[in-house]
Amino acid sequence: MSDEVRELLLEAGDLLKARYFDPPLCDVNARRELVTETDREIGRMIVERLRRLFPGDGVRGEDLGREQGQSGGTWIIDPIDGTSNYLMGKPYFAISMAREQRDKITEAYVYNPVSGELYHAGKGKKGAFLNGQRISPSPTTEIRDSLVAFGFSANMMAIQRYYDEWKPVFDQCAKGVGWITPAVTLCNVARGRLDAYFDFGASPAGQSSGGYILQKAGGIAMDYDSFDHYDYRTKGIVACGPGLVEALKKARK
Amino acid sequence: MSDEVRELLLEAGDLLKARYFDPPLCDVNARRELVTETDREIGRMIVERLRRLFPGDGVRGEDLGREQGQSGGTWIIDPIDGTSNYLMGKPYFAISMAREQRDKITEAYVYNPVSGELYHAGKGKKGAFLNGQRISPSPTTEIRDSLVAFGFSANMMAIQRYYDEWKPVFDQCAKGVGWITPAVTLCNVARGRLDAYFDFGASPAGQSSGGYILQKAGGIAMDYDSFDHYDYRTKGIVACGPGLVEALKKARK
Repeated sequence: MSDEVRELLLEAGDLLKARYFDPPLCDVNARRELVTETDREIGRMIVERLRRLFPGDGVRGEDLGREQGQSGGTWIIDPIDGTSNYLMGKPYFAISMAREQRDKITEAYVYNPVSGELYHAGKGKKGAFLNGQRISPSPTTEIRDSLVAFGFSANMMAIQRYYDEWKPVFDQCAKGVGWITPAVTLCNVARGRLDAYFDFGASPAGQSSGGYILQKAGGIAMDYDSFDHYDYRTKGIVACGPGLVEALKKARK
Repeated sequence: MSDEVRELLLEAGDLLKARYFDPPLCDVNARRELVTETDREIGRMIVERLRRLFPGDGVRGEDLGREQGQSGGTWIIDPIDGTSNYLMGKPYFAISMAREQRDKITEAYVYNPVSGELYHAGKGKKGAFLNGQRISPSPTTEIRDSLVAFGFSANMMAIQRYYDEWKPVFDQCAKGVGWITPAVTLCNVARGRLDAYFDFGASPAGQSSGGYILQKAGGIAMDYDSFDHYDYRTKGIVACGPGLVEALKKARK
């Protein structure tokens, strides 16, 4: 990772952290607006810095529009992956950035400024890294030994869909939870803290960074619907360590 | 908060944080054992320090047994509130301590060492505090404006029970999530980041600190089953800001 990109992430992270610890307004609509404002503020800051660092590159992001560059490279930015956690007081969110070139990711960054965990991979270098240390996914092979995250909140339709599609995993895994933070959660699979992650709604933004880091770490990313060839531009993902693929294929309805 | 208690929490928190960031073993059983060991290690450290600071007090905790003191005061300790999050890589866990005297809590502390958020209340002082700043619950009155946490993980029976008992909240709240970390989550209600929290399984340990801090902040704690008189020694809790009680009573099946 270049010093300039690291500096960018640390500075944007400091701002995000400061806003997070700010006393929140208590009215929920005001609080939500505040989060949206912070999301835009961090996004603008990142875009400005990237433009200076990589003048030929384009940028893309939910509130940032889509801007083509001349280099053929485009930065996919999610200023806050995990806005619900951010809003509701859970320090499990991150700044997510990935550079795309000719429909492939070439480098990616996921940074949780509260925990100080900075994941990255790419630029021709082998492997994936957490704060400079090489990471790898878990060697788990059995569902009963697995720590698993599903991408649901308290939404009965979503929960029911995961249950219908992954009943053996849901019922038999060592521990299952509902987490809705694709970039960070994919990094947690990449580093072996989680054995698998299922998210039919994971956005391309969160996946483009986390999915790439997972693959570079030696983990497996699959398309949610086809359970086959993975494309970060398609919504949804199944992620796991390499040892768990066969068991998941059997468990899939 | 006395300097001695603050020092104890910061030191125990530093150790807990260091263990959390340690590269985890990848086998799930080894990882689980490691968490249990850390839980005991932090527990022993806290007990030793409390014995020196308050020689007459007793201690109580899941892995710490039950030891009566001569003073009539007992410390209820949970070294890691939120062990699943700790295990699975989500920095939403805390050290929880509450002092009980004559069946009442007289002071309480909840400390997340990763985010540095230290909540406390008690010792005759009015109010509840986060890092020294007075906190208060949200003024929300309507379910549709509410950010809500239910105490479930990916466990279909638990989810179904919450859904059956709180369908209008589940379906109509602004955002609902499944969080299983009583002490910290009660503090998040106490500071108004969450509007309500439902947990039929909340243990006395997590509640004794978080429930007390919530009440001192001006929030409402209710027994989960009777939805009435609150006792931290009874499993389960419903927590909210004072404005939401009536709406919840109507929503309760």
